[in-house]
Amino acid sequence: MPGSTFGTLFKITTWGESHGKGVGVVVDGCPPGIPLDEATIQAMMDRRKPGSSSASTSRKEPDKAIIMSGVFEGVTTGTPIMIMMHNKDAKSDAYKPYADLFRPGHGDITYEAKYGIRDWRGGGRSSARETAGRVAAGAVAKAFLDRKNISVSAYTTALGGIKAEKRDLNVINENPFYCPDTDAAEEMQQRVLAVKNEGDSLGGIVEILAAGVPAGLGDPVFDKLDAELAKSLMSIGAVKGVEIGAGFEAASKKGSENNDPITPEGFATNNSGGILAGISNGDNLLMRVAVKPIPSIAIEQNTTDRQGNPRTISTKGRHDISAIPRINVVCEAMVCLVLADHLLRQKAILSVNNDQ
Amino acid sequence: MPGSTFGTLFKITTWGESHGKGVGVVVDGCPPGIPLDEATIQAMMDRRKPGSSSASTSRKEPDKAIIMSGVFEGVTTGTPIMIMMHNKDAKSDAYKPYADLFRPGHGDITYEAKYGIRDWRGGGRSSARETAGRVAAGAVAKAFLDRKNISVSAYTTALGGIKAEKRDLNVINENPFYCPDTDAAEEMQQRVLAVKNEGDSLGGIVEILAAGVPAGLGDPVFDKLDAELAKSLMSIGAVKGVEIGAGFEAASKKGSENNDPITPEGFATNNSGGILAGISNGDNLLMRVAVKPIPSIAIEQNTTDRQGNPRTISTKGRHDISAIPRINVVCEAMVCLVLADHLLRQKAILSVNNDQ
Amino acid sequence: MPGSTFGTLFKITTWGESHGKGVGVVVDGCPPGIPLDEATIQAMMDRRKPGSSSASTSRKEPDKAIIMSGVFEGVTTGTPIMIMMHNKDAKSDAYKPYADLFRPGHGDITYEAKYGIRDWRGGGRSSARETAGRVAAGAVAKAFLDRKNISVSAYTTALGGIKAEKRDLNVINENPFYCPDTDAAEEMQQRVLAVKNEGDSLGGIVEILAAGVPAGLGDPVFDKLDAELAKSLMSIGAVKGVEIGAGFEAASKKGSENNDPITPEGFATNNSGGILAGISNGDNLLMRVAVKPIPSIAIEQNTTDRQGNPRTISTKGRHDISAIPRINVVCEAMVCLVLADHLLRQKAILSVNNDQ
Amino acid sequence: MPGSTFGTLFKITTWGESHGKGVGVVVDGCPPGIPLDEATIQAMMDRRKPGSSSASTSRKEPDKAIIMSGVFEGVTTGTPIMIMMHNKDAKSDAYKPYADLFRPGHGDITYEAKYGIRDWRGGGRSSARETAGRVAAGAVAKAFLDRKNISVSAYTTALGGIKAEKRDLNVINENPFYCPDTDAAEEMQQRVLAVKNEGDSLGGIVEILAAGVPAGLGDPVFDKLDAELAKSLMSIGAVKGVEIGAGFEAASKKGSENNDPITPEGFATNNSGGILAGISNGDNLLMRVAVKPIPSIAIEQNTTDRQGNPRTISTKGRHDISAIPRINVVCEAMVCLVLADHLLRQKAILSVNNDQ
Repeated sequence: MPGSTFGTLFKITTWGESHGKGVGVVVDGCPPGIPLDEATIQAMMDRRKPGSSSASTSRKEPDKAIIMSGVFEGVTTGTPIMIMMHNKDAKSDAYKPYADLFRPGHGDITYEAKYGIRDWRGGGRSSARETAGRVAAGAVAKAFLDRKNISVSAYTTALGGIKAEKRDLNVINENPFYCPDTDAAEEMQQRVLAVKNEGDSLGGIVEILAAGVPAGLGDPVFDKLDAELAKSLMSIGAVKGVEIGAGFEAASKKGSENNDPITPEGFATNNSGGILAGISNGDNLLMRVAVKPIPSIAIEQNTTDRQGNPRTISTKGRHDISAIPRINVVCEAMVCLVLADHLLRQKAILSVNNDQ
Repeated sequence: MPGSTFGTLFKITTWGESHGKGVGVVVDGCPPGIPLDEATIQAMMDRRKPGSSSASTSRKEPDKAIIMSGVFEGVTTGTPIMIMMHNKDAKSDAYKPYADLFRPGHGDITYEAKYGIRDWRGGGRSSARETAGRVAAGAVAKAFLDRKNISVSAYTTALGGIKAEKRDLNVINENPFYCPDTDAAEEMQQRVLAVKNEGDSLGGIVEILAAGVPAGLGDPVFDKLDAELAKSLMSIGAVKGVEIGAGFEAASKKGSENNDPITPEGFATNNSGGILAGISNGDNLLMRVAVKPIPSIAIEQNTTDRQGNPRTISTKGRHDISAIPRINVVCEAMVCLVLADHLLRQKAILSVNNDQ
Repeated sequence: MPGSTFGTLFKITTWGESHGKGVGVVVDGCPPGIPLDEATIQAMMDRRKPGSSSASTSRKEPDKAIIMSGVFEGVTTGTPIMIMMHNKDAKSDAYKPYADLFRPGHGDITYEAKYGIRDWRGGGRSSARETAGRVAAGAVAKAFLDRKNISVSAYTTALGGIKAEKRDLNVINENPFYCPDTDAAEEMQQRVLAVKNEGDSLGGIVEILAAGVPAGLGDPVFDKLDAELAKSLMSIGAVKGVEIGAGFEAASKKGSENNDPITPEGFATNNSGGILAGISNGDNLLMRVAVKPIPSIAIEQNTTDRQGNPRTISTKGRHDISAIPRINVVCEAMVCLVLADHLLRQKAILSVNNDQ
Repeated sequence: MPGSTFGTLFKITTWGESHGKGVGVVVDGCPPGIPLDEATIQAMMDRRKPGSSSASTSRKEPDKAIIMSGVFEGVTTGTPIMIMMHNKDAKSDAYKPYADLFRPGHGDITYEAKYGIRDWRGGGRSSARETAGRVAAGAVAKAFLDRKNISVSAYTTALGGIKAEKRDLNVINENPFYCPDTDAAEEMQQRVLAVKNEGDSLGGIVEILAAGVPAGLGDPVFDKLDAELAKSLMSIGAVKGVEIGAGFEAASKKGSENNDPITPEGFATNNSGGILAGISNGDNLLMRVAVKPIPSIAIEQNTTDRQGNPRTISTKGRHDISAIPRINVVCEAMVCLVLADHLLRQKAILSVNNDQ
């Protein structure tokens, strides 16, 4: 029944719903001695903040991250780190009209089916607001990975059908969509504004690259590194697909095209996405997620109420046009969490051999 | 470190490597009173058997499934069901030439990195032979789902770039590729034979459909039904991508196109793949996996030996041209296992409410 | 590495240290629809409050429990319930003199060994203050068990060598030690005052009785009900022993004395403590824990500093003379949590059979 | 529902029932490179064999341990190690008369309550035969601990009320009861023979000592080392109590008596049993378990049949008089498993700090 815990050694548990008192996360298993302060967490939280692009809602979510435990004299102690954000600027009344309706594309109908009850205020637990806790935890994981020289970046490679042709990671912080192709970013901007006027919304694709990942991470056969990455990314509300390396393109390749030749200097290509047989191979990890369009749209749609009567709904209010770019840092956080967990899992094996 | 266990309430643990004494699985948590015999399991195992299509190896793997425990007087007792298959017809000597080489696209190099040691005979634990245990466990899950009128089917929608245009599930058992489009199946056959002659291999796409799934399965936020399905499917060796419902196509749709309207009779479309906010919505579950081409090919490839010296390798011998169609039943098994687990998890909630 | 999570379906994660900003717990997996408010939790928290008996510290811990999430319109929603208490009246300076010393009987030396760092303020995470989160979670579990007519009581059967001869549960709330024997309670009072004057401390025994527990709870072979109860109780800091039913006395009995005869009306005796082969048998659950004396004493003791130099220590300040009676409600909470978890686990099985 | 898996990083899953085809265990997470062969496992299995003392059944259980996977060229590979024993000399017909009866002190009645079905042949899954898998797994753990110079010994300190006064571990292999006091062992022998003639059975106490355990093992707050040891030992069928260090005696001590003074040379006493705040302190681990008398006795007892009618039962046949001494090696195995698991868990932390 519970599903709010993720990870084995680097383990997180999130809590909180959209319009409750707050949201947060317990990070249990972060190694001791990692420097950590609220500013580090806030920096990552701020990338999730709405309003940074034309695609995002104007709802103010200052999301001031407070470290409640687990840090002493500026470093982690190895004990649970609880980080919380108070909910502010939540306008529950705006959701009252929908309290008795099922919004298409949302979890209203399924939460009702599962629990027989739901918190209709802002989507309750199914709100994207839940990801605030993930990002806070991801910031802790990132602080740990930094010390191991592992870096993770998420960027937009498609939005509303506009595809990035280039992969210039130097420019991703220079446009509102974290897009590695400046020209594409400009087209995305036009596309977003046009669709906004239509009262519609857009989906897209986020690519995540992890560099500096040592070979050996991942636990066959069910806890393969790619399996855990897939789970972590698919657990983000708007994600409908995950692929590693060549991904779905591998399906139409021949073995001679898809295999990455091995040379004394490393792999000649990276169709594997840095993972072979579920274990990292020392190359960059590369993966992509398909993000569905935001289901809340102003255009009128058919639905039913809780009693099953036909109704229509048009969602006006403060909504993102696309989960991109706010979702990018959530993807990044999840990949950081998986890597931190598997780094520790692999440390256990290595140290056994090393100190014999 | 360990990764051979999957599931929370319906929990399986597989063991065994390609050329060891055998492979098998412990199924723990199957409810008591489910009729089960070796013939039921064997029927599902036989669908994994090589030789049923031109794409598969001629290695004989009779895979006689033996129930070692957990069944008494024809029904499950609720205690662990261990099912094993002895390894037969394993020709380890054929792998000796590669003992010191890393086969491109295989886990040789990553197992070496992870464990510092590897069983080079037939891929050891990274062999697709490991999936025999999954299928045996899947047969147990299927027996349980049968009683709940839930059915799961896996079929081939693409092979070597040939795509099935139709979805006629009535014909999937009438062609060697379990393809729901007879015309496409014939093209696939031509494609396989051509590539076989080139000494190359092919990938493809498997679609899995689950019907009769009640609304309410899946545990937000990390153990969402789609997240667990993604993990279970991505944990299959050859899988490089997973998508649910519209999947990657959702990325280029607008909200008004992607949302499934709700009517008193149910959902008007199924872009969600039967899952909203990580919980089943009562519609059919629909998902697809990208299967990479078999990495073992006769064409010469660049690689290195364990010491890092440049070498070439050409894998001759008994290998599948494509993991499809043998992988289909593995996908089906994994989906059955996830559903059995979440069905039990949801039963706990429901019964609490029902008997109050 | 992490160890702050307990339970499978009814799962809790505690966080917080003695002198940090607060302590709390995430309860994940509580069934939806259970009435819950802060007053219910506070009532159980208050039983953990110091000052209720002569054996307890005068430190003020108002422990105002705040429900941060998971409750909507007065009932649980099935999503994570976060409950927190701000730390108040924490006098960290009082611990400065010991920052460089290892207090005998405390976790100072082992936290240092494990993490290489420790929060010396009030014992940090190893403080009994951590149990506040357990009690808050236990109150949620109790609210669930109430609906199933399961009740759990913890009471003192020994303190400082004084043993309760009677088991009159009606009087346990009428004396400060929750002792089911009024005469013994008076002797305990004398004993506590005498030892207080000596600057010493006392241990004792707490017995826990659970009534109304249905037969069938517990998952053989490792997650037996008694095994999980033993873990849950032994995880309380001061507990050094756990026994079920006849416990250590069973070791000197003969089979004919220890077996509980079965009659059409039920078991004739209850040496088993209500558990056979790890599964509840429908009788009352009965168990006892050995509580060691509080290690912080005014009497001077030998120790070393962090550098290994011999030192002496005398702990003056606000300390309990005995963990009893404050620990009683913690024991009760842990038993409630185990029962809630296993009740849900068993519901899964039962419902499978019932609705076929 | 499932409960047959134990451990986090060093994880085992047992399977099999008394009169099924066999029993066994999957050990997942054993580090690679540990020398292991069947003889090593067999040596530990043989200590569980009946017939070594007058207290044990004459049933022949050769228990030939077969390694089915996970070992290649004499060392572990890091992949699952499956070890199995075929069931031999099982006389199911001897149990037919009891198929409809609930044997007092046995799990018959509770398995029936839990699963609605039970395998009545020899106790099915609730049989002590299940522990064969534990011992095989314990032998693997022991092989790992050997390399870390950690040793674990279990010995009898009480049997049928006769207590060992001495702790001479040199003599424990020189008497049939693994008793560290030769005089007591002789008395135990007399006691066993007397009770055997009465058709009755005996309980006792087993003490387990682990030497060479490094400080730092155990994960606060729920996965404390003592909590996990308590669970592991209480999960053994006949165990009704567990205590660490001074255990129940600590309940009547004063703090000044119970605290172990710390000196530059180590702890002056060991009332803690080597564990403070749930973490090993570098001293010997010391714990004791209470073993109840074997419930199968020849003396007639009251019971009911499955329909609730009053009946009597007298169990004649091949039964142990006491679970001691066969249970000793099971206790030893469980302690080895807990230590192996926590050693790996702690390695993860240490290596993080070491290689920074």
